Amino acid sequence: MEHALGPGAEFDAVRRLVRGWGDLAAGIGDDAAVLDVPPGERLVVSTDASVERVHFRREWLTPAQIGARATTSALSDLAAMGAAALGIVVALVVPAAWRPDLDAVAAGIGEAVAAAGTRIVGGDMSSGAELSITVTVFGTAARPVTRAGAQVGDDVFVTGLLGGPLLALRALQRGEEPTHRAHRLAFAAPVARLGEGRWLAARGATAMIDVSDGLAADLRHVAAASGVRLRVELGALPRVAGASPLDALASGEEYALAACVPPGAVDVTAFEQAFSTSLTRIGTVEAAVPGGTLVVVDDAGGRVDLPPGHDHFSS
Amino acid sequence: MEHALGPGAEFDAVRRLVRGWGDLAAGIGDDAAVLDVPPGERLVVSTDASVERVHFRREWLTPAQIGARATTSALSDLAAMGAAALGIVVALVVPAAWRPDLDAVAAGIGEAVAAAGTRIVGGDMSSGAELSITVTVFGTAARPVTRAGAQVGDDVFVTGLLGGPLLALRALQRGEEPTHRAHRLAFAAPVARLGEGRWLAARGATAMIDVSDGLAADLRHVAAASGVRLRVELGALPRVAGASPLDALASGEEYALAACVPPGAVDVTAFEQAFSTSLTRIGTVEAAVPGGTLVVVDDAGGRVDLPPGHDHFSS
Repeated sequence: MEHALGPGAEFDAVRRLVRGWGDLAAGIGDDAAVLDVPPGERLVVSTDASVERVHFRREWLTPAQIGARATTSALSDLAAMGAAALGIVVALVVPAAWRPDLDAVAAGIGEAVAAAGTRIVGGDMSSGAELSITVTVFGTAARPVTRAGAQVGDDVFVTGLLGGPLLALRALQRGEEPTHRAHRLAFAAPVARLGEGRWLAARGATAMIDVSDGLAADLRHVAAASGVRLRVELGALPRVAGASPLDALASGEEYALAACVPPGAVDVTAFEQAFSTSLTRIGTVEAAVPGGTLVVVDDAGGRVDLPPGHDHFSS
Repeated sequence: MEHALGPGAEFDAVRRLVRGWGDLAAGIGDDAAVLDVPPGERLVVSTDASVERVHFRREWLTPAQIGARATTSALSDLAAMGAAALGIVVALVVPAAWRPDLDAVAAGIGEAVAAAGTRIVGGDMSSGAELSITVTVFGTAARPVTRAGAQVGDDVFVTGLLGGPLLALRALQRGEEPTHRAHRLAFAAPVARLGEGRWLAARGATAMIDVSDGLAADLRHVAAASGVRLRVELGALPRVAGASPLDALASGEEYALAACVPPGAVDVTAFEQAFSTSLTRIGTVEAAVPGGTLVVVDDAGGRVDLPPGHDHFSS
């Protein structure tokens, strides 16, 4: 664990964090951590920064939620590749005003790591003007699932119920508490769908993505990478109570998984029993199209105008 | 490459960066990058954040040097493990005031990556209040060298000539240009000693560290991790022109390697011919000592008081 908080205080802070993580931290204290990729598996890596006032606001989340959310967001990228988590490293930039809350932020990171069944294998701590949490995740998969493999005829599925984070965000931006506890929770305590991603990968998922920018924006990424036309039925979108179908298309930071799967390859009931989460068929891969495109249709077959992608709090 | 600079501008910035990197960037654009660890090799990972006003000052370095230095600092941790680089991911937090210099920062990152013979396999870009560059490095080694393996009787070696970054920093802090171009260069354009680290590992190095906090502070880490007493001869320290032996002990961000090696295991001339860099025996591993300790002696055999560790610009 490297560090630049100044001598004494810096080592104490790192030691306290590592002690707080207990068995969740492993191998910290050398120049680098050493991990093993199982034979026949490939290494999958991703990095994700969460920055104060860009990705989160202190007044809307507890310090532990901020730590957990930053970690979940990174782990969700492994889920989208159908990978198992091997470990994470965390680079923290900690302003003086955040030092009293550092243990709580770290506890949140630990919670997300424990939920994913993985470990913190290294890190870096520095002072700075605003809290930022950069989580880099390492995973392994025999056959990582990219965004680029969707095949004509595949079904398009999405996990869970969409819209909660957007409804919660709207309430918070109006200065109100979200009306439903489920919306609040979906926003403040999202879950990385690692088991779900591996399950879908094992059943032959051809393309997968986690819903971070909003379902419409993320499916556009899949359509572009795969060079296909995706057709999604607006009425089929699984939604939390109070969310419109358009909310479900626009809501970001869901960390649900959207997957293209060969027809007949998944048993929805088995998935739902295994994960206590819904799995919903929302459309099909219609045709190969250079550049790719997403078409959303309403019940009358009319084409729906799509919302823009989620852009965090920046404008 | 994930991002949160806002739609349009954000994608344009990421695309421009990736285009600028050319062949140095590979596999960017999915949720995660996929890499292969050669059979029989272990995965070595480390993360390192460089934050404006903590790790660097804009008035002392060009934007390209800032990018290169942040990347070199992270790659140097692989060198210290005797690992070969497999790839890096970069998380950038870019304030509006830095956007005009972003291409130059990225070019510097590319230079360091090219010098290390590796690739940028993923990243993340966000807005924020201060420039920060978090580089996470992945490498492989059949037998990674930690700080913990030093054996009684080993020789202690260090690569290169020490003191340049400290002399340059002192001049810059006085508002002057460093008197020697070599000091300036050692400070502004350090090199990650990846080849040197692998060479030393292949010859049986038992413990290794890169000199980032200052030789004395870093050798203390090795002594503590290995549980040994290291004895270093002050007069043997290899120094740049103008540096005192104490400067050589205190100078940080050198990215030289310090290694413990079984006696007779290295051919200094062969090393120096291979890398055009000096390799100097500076001491020995004297005894096993619980907790470990570093003793530096002058020519008369007297014990020298040690400088504190380098603490970047924070206090």
